[in-house]
Amino acid sequence: MGMVGGGRGAFIGAVHRMASAIDGEIELVAGAFSSNPRKSKLSGKDFYLDSKRVYKSYEEMIIKEKALPTDVRIDFVSIVTPNHMHYGPAKMALENGFHVICDKPLCFNMKEAKELQQLVKKTKLIFALTHNYTGYPMVKEAKDMVKTGKIGKVRKVVVEYPQGWLPTLVEKTNQKQAAWRTDPKKSGIAGSMGDIGTHAENLAEYITGLKIKELCADISIIVKGRKLDDDGNVLLRFSNGARGVLHASQICAGEENSLNIRVYGEKAGLEWHQMEPNTLEVKWLDKPKETLRTGGGGLSAASQEATRTPAGHPEGYLEAFANVYKNFAKCIQARIDKKKVDPIYKDFPTVADGVRGMQFIETVIKSGKSKQKWVKFPK
Amino acid sequence: MGMVGGGRGAFIGAVHRMASAIDGEIELVAGAFSSNPRKSKLSGKDFYLDSKRVYKSYEEMIIKEKALPTDVRIDFVSIVTPNHMHYGPAKMALENGFHVICDKPLCFNMKEAKELQQLVKKTKLIFALTHNYTGYPMVKEAKDMVKTGKIGKVRKVVVEYPQGWLPTLVEKTNQKQAAWRTDPKKSGIAGSMGDIGTHAENLAEYITGLKIKELCADISIIVKGRKLDDDGNVLLRFSNGARGVLHASQICAGEENSLNIRVYGEKAGLEWHQMEPNTLEVKWLDKPKETLRTGGGGLSAASQEATRTPAGHPEGYLEAFANVYKNFAKCIQARIDKKKVDPIYKDFPTVADGVRGMQFIETVIKSGKSKQKWVKFPK
Amino acid sequence: MGMVGGGRGAFIGAVHRMASAIDGEIELVAGAFSSNPRKSKLSGKDFYLDSKRVYKSYEEMIIKEKALPTDVRIDFVSIVTPNHMHYGPAKMALENGFHVICDKPLCFNMKEAKELQQLVKKTKLIFALTHNYTGYPMVKEAKDMVKTGKIGKVRKVVVEYPQGWLPTLVEKTNQKQAAWRTDPKKSGIAGSMGDIGTHAENLAEYITGLKIKELCADISIIVKGRKLDDDGNVLLRFSNGARGVLHASQICAGEENSLNIRVYGEKAGLEWHQMEPNTLEVKWLDKPKETLRTGGGGLSAASQEATRTPAGHPEGYLEAFANVYKNFAKCIQARIDKKKVDPIYKDFPTVADGVRGMQFIETVIKSGKSKQKWVKFPK
Amino acid sequence: MGMVGGGRGAFIGAVHRMASAIDGEIELVAGAFSSNPRKSKLSGKDFYLDSKRVYKSYEEMIIKEKALPTDVRIDFVSIVTPNHMHYGPAKMALENGFHVICDKPLCFNMKEAKELQQLVKKTKLIFALTHNYTGYPMVKEAKDMVKTGKIGKVRKVVVEYPQGWLPTLVEKTNQKQAAWRTDPKKSGIAGSMGDIGTHAENLAEYITGLKIKELCADISIIVKGRKLDDDGNVLLRFSNGARGVLHASQICAGEENSLNIRVYGEKAGLEWHQMEPNTLEVKWLDKPKETLRTGGGGLSAASQEATRTPAGHPEGYLEAFANVYKNFAKCIQARIDKKKVDPIYKDFPTVADGVRGMQFIETVIKSGKSKQKWVKFPK
Repeated sequence: MGMVGGGRGAFIGAVHRMASAIDGEIELVAGAFSSNPRKSKLSGKDFYLDSKRVYKSYEEMIIKEKALPTDVRIDFVSIVTPNHMHYGPAKMALENGFHVICDKPLCFNMKEAKELQQLVKKTKLIFALTHNYTGYPMVKEAKDMVKTGKIGKVRKVVVEYPQGWLPTLVEKTNQKQAAWRTDPKKSGIAGSMGDIGTHAENLAEYITGLKIKELCADISIIVKGRKLDDDGNVLLRFSNGARGVLHASQICAGEENSLNIRVYGEKAGLEWHQMEPNTLEVKWLDKPKETLRTGGGGLSAASQEATRTPAGHPEGYLEAFANVYKNFAKCIQARIDKKKVDPIYKDFPTVADGVRGMQFIETVIKSGKSKQKWVKFPK
Repeated sequence: MGMVGGGRGAFIGAVHRMASAIDGEIELVAGAFSSNPRKSKLSGKDFYLDSKRVYKSYEEMIIKEKALPTDVRIDFVSIVTPNHMHYGPAKMALENGFHVICDKPLCFNMKEAKELQQLVKKTKLIFALTHNYTGYPMVKEAKDMVKTGKIGKVRKVVVEYPQGWLPTLVEKTNQKQAAWRTDPKKSGIAGSMGDIGTHAENLAEYITGLKIKELCADISIIVKGRKLDDDGNVLLRFSNGARGVLHASQICAGEENSLNIRVYGEKAGLEWHQMEPNTLEVKWLDKPKETLRTGGGGLSAASQEATRTPAGHPEGYLEAFANVYKNFAKCIQARIDKKKVDPIYKDFPTVADGVRGMQFIETVIKSGKSKQKWVKFPK
Repeated sequence: MGMVGGGRGAFIGAVHRMASAIDGEIELVAGAFSSNPRKSKLSGKDFYLDSKRVYKSYEEMIIKEKALPTDVRIDFVSIVTPNHMHYGPAKMALENGFHVICDKPLCFNMKEAKELQQLVKKTKLIFALTHNYTGYPMVKEAKDMVKTGKIGKVRKVVVEYPQGWLPTLVEKTNQKQAAWRTDPKKSGIAGSMGDIGTHAENLAEYITGLKIKELCADISIIVKGRKLDDDGNVLLRFSNGARGVLHASQICAGEENSLNIRVYGEKAGLEWHQMEPNTLEVKWLDKPKETLRTGGGGLSAASQEATRTPAGHPEGYLEAFANVYKNFAKCIQARIDKKKVDPIYKDFPTVADGVRGMQFIETVIKSGKSKQKWVKFPK
Repeated sequence: MGMVGGGRGAFIGAVHRMASAIDGEIELVAGAFSSNPRKSKLSGKDFYLDSKRVYKSYEEMIIKEKALPTDVRIDFVSIVTPNHMHYGPAKMALENGFHVICDKPLCFNMKEAKELQQLVKKTKLIFALTHNYTGYPMVKEAKDMVKTGKIGKVRKVVVEYPQGWLPTLVEKTNQKQAAWRTDPKKSGIAGSMGDIGTHAENLAEYITGLKIKELCADISIIVKGRKLDDDGNVLLRFSNGARGVLHASQICAGEENSLNIRVYGEKAGLEWHQMEPNTLEVKWLDKPKETLRTGGGGLSAASQEATRTPAGHPEGYLEAFANVYKNFAKCIQARIDKKKVDPIYKDFPTVADGVRGMQFIETVIKSGKSKQKWVKFPK
């Protein structure tokens, strides 16, 4: 693995490194960790890399790694930069034969998104997007329950993502994370809707297998002086007629990272909370509520495959994140081994999810400005 | 107290009787318990009433009770009939000098609501509406915290009320509760929005002290063949600029009576769940989350007054309901004693809340049919 | 109902009054509310009683009420005084033909307990003891599940009752509740073990249907200067060989009234918490955990009978307390009507439970002082 | 790192590998993964090791690694075998200059324990014991709160560890984990008390900083035919006079891995649950309960150092386990670098904790057989 971005002090870069290391299947061997070459070098040292493979830029990394023998060079590029810096390295990596795993949202705008999707199609390379919350075993179990009809036809979805870390103009206080995420030049047209709204959208579509057909959004900048939305409340209508609510915010005082979802079907309702991720409540219509637990008996193959420890040994955020890496790596390994990959490993978010996320951003921002009630979600 | 409706087997009538009995301040002495005179008589016997004071109709009750000496006759009428049967007895009781406590929603339509409001104004009689959820000590505490500025300016409100008791056409199965609540002739223009949406609206406005200024609703009939809405999802904008989401539904499989509210201010967020009503979470911006508990130390006077047992001795639905009766009764007693009432007892929902609820019903149903995004909420 | 004790400002007296009033089946018509005749009179006025039936002493009440016509006089006496004042009124009431409902523990010592038991046997009158926690619907459900073999043979019981209201010498601060409960002259040989330990013991035996055979206790006075135990930790062995732990304390900082029980059988474990009393967790060996809820479907007849409102409308401490009164009253009513009582109403704690509780107190205190490991529990 | 045990299919070996990999500071480069040399080889291949460094036995590993140049050879040995196989490799590793990290309990009996302790003292090598639960940030926070006097003098401790995975003779069903853990030849004189009781004991002493002074235990074999205890209930008395209860069991139907602790001081009570490890409840005597959260503001340095992601991104079992490895590795690195280690990294369980655990096993088993109430815990 060669990493783009994620130098010293970066939040999501560290997460990618830890998540990719857990299973002992992926090794970080190269990187262009910063646009500042000196910082990149120092970061490489922190990570015990061979200094020759710590590069000044992603361009250099891709060119020089490509020049190495097949069994030495990196198999894929991991992109952990801010949104506006996804497209460049992703494009170049794909064009040079490297698989790509990229942080979300996919890129800066729809144009870039479509291009990347075309490029993946053309190169047939493997592209993963770290909508990491779909990596939780209980999220996979929820998806399986919907898919196998256990809860019946889906009627209503409530997905919510309140955070509380931007209740004031934090971006003016030298907080790097806040600064780029609220800067239209780096983040794109959306703030909270891109940063966390897309996770909520992705989670709802992942679990239900449904597509949002149209939506109606109230998008706000609550904190005066902020440049991008920090709160959004959205009515959803899904492809099968199901109704939904999505709300996400970064100004909810005291909230940590409270991504939650409830899916109501004709036979049962499902409820999952990211902050207690090893529990899935199943509220049956005609019998007592059941609590499914990571590692418990009788779970789906996808859920089991995503589980590392027995029930009661809590798996967390990094383990879920690692599941995206693991499945991505398994697919690459099969490609290298010229073997057919077990379908269970194909379960990770792809460039298509990325395009979907970019469409969500465009649609929800458009709706926020519209006087018309419903705005169609592009297919 | 003389009761209208609530005979044998009625749900809410029994609740009113138990709630009014708890504190030993109110005695049920008369009633017209059913439109079926025989059933009314039998019900009166169940409740150990003097058979002379068990009447065939509310009209008879009001006339005959009025004829009794002041110290014998009922002080007030309690109306626990379906929505279309509120206006008649309420009007007649007021016109004949009886105070009134009435189940929600106030009545059948705005016209009736306005008339009742005028009549209360004119007669100066006391009118209580049993938006019982405002009777919980922790709801009163939440209101007090907002009012005294503890959470700062309110920025966002999420109020939700999923129930799961109408997931199929229960109304066709001889279930009396379901039958009238889904019948436009008895319930009015709204189903779930009137039955539980009004509770959600009332709770949000009670706690925040804000008024909904405009809303945008997606109102649905999910179960085929049903005549009134059974699901509604609503974007809210409040008078002070705060954003909000209200969703209520009666088709959420496995949900019981899950009225919940979160209020986010500049300094803290509040969270309360009706199904664990003795807990109020306070999520501070800059310090650990606190859990306030019914009966705990340092609570507001309103919360303390609404509490009967020490912390850890859970108070429930009936006790909250009883708090509406208790405050209503205290105000009547003061009127009888010609004393000034302690302001703490004025804390119960009145005809004004009832009018507000009827406006909510009209606005939300109107919005549900509109292609326009925002519909103004009448002042 | 005629009440002994429970005048103005008393905690448990008010609870008895509210609990007995909820169902509209019991009327408070007489009382000797205080050993201070003036205070008794004032209390009677508070409760709207006929002043003629507010007595100076329990002796006077029993004699004068007995002299009244059968259809006028009280049917039973409710005793809500401190422990040392249970025996006298209970004995006299029974000897004069009145049924008795008495707060726990039964009395002051084993000698009194045995006498009362004999007297009940001899008079065949109905005697209820307010081990109120057995009145919760989910406790009754737990008992039913054990009885019907659903969890298999019971193997282990963990019952705990931490409270935190006596962490300092509160009894020296004019706190009346604390004063008598820590005074050996009023409370007996035990403090916390009598006050709450007996509730824990009763709950464990009620649910499991087992008897404690022997125990080993560590009984302590944690707060210096206190005269009776405020903390106790006890190993239990039950009649069927099951193991157990009982711990109860009144010095657990920050605890409210946290009576909890876990019962593990061969097929499933049960878990119940008094502070969230409407939930019963059933942890199956071979399938997902289920959550049973007050008012939910498929529950036992005893649980249903003890439930007043639909699922999700929380029932609390007073409702559970009321269930003891209700069943007691139903049995008295059947006696008056000379009818056979439905066995479901026989489900309330009796004088036998009271004797058992007194034995627990004696055994646990004895064990606390013993160097021997196990002390037999008398049969 | 060179590993002893933990080949294909082993539970705790995999945990050690994942935990040691997360932070990118430790690399698995050698191993003797099985007493079966072929299985060891295959396991080494699974882990992408140089086949030359996959050994047939721990003896071979220690000898051959020692022969490698300093900058190539392993720095430490990780021992993840069953209990009876700890002593041999630990002794040999220490005698040959390798630091050791070893799974708990320390070894097979007190004699071995004392020897290892002497050897560590003599060699001055670093020895870590994976009482992994002390690695959780909120456990470290609890320890810090006690140490800094925030909860006042500790008065009572309740530590419990119910599991449910041995409710039947699982050991007869080819379940390898169950087989060795219930086999006196591999596990030692204790079953559940050694396997999980020691974790409970360690957690209680770690957080409180107190030592158990004496105990009284009821130790049982609940499942017929089992050779070692599967249930234990223990009264504790601590060095400062505090009382305590410890109960641990492996026959609690439906329990997963429910290690929980409550510590009550004069000013506050603490409560922590391993299955929701990122939350620490602080129940104050005189103010509302606070909830501390991993990654939240204002936490101790030890807690912060043990945290990898922001609040609300749950850290789990592997992360806590990794914290033992991380601190252990930091101390080794400082030794290698000949630098003074930051005291914060000295926070991991050592051979002294291991000796303490072995003493707990001996004392609790002795007490279980004794008719005497209290058995002294050796100092």
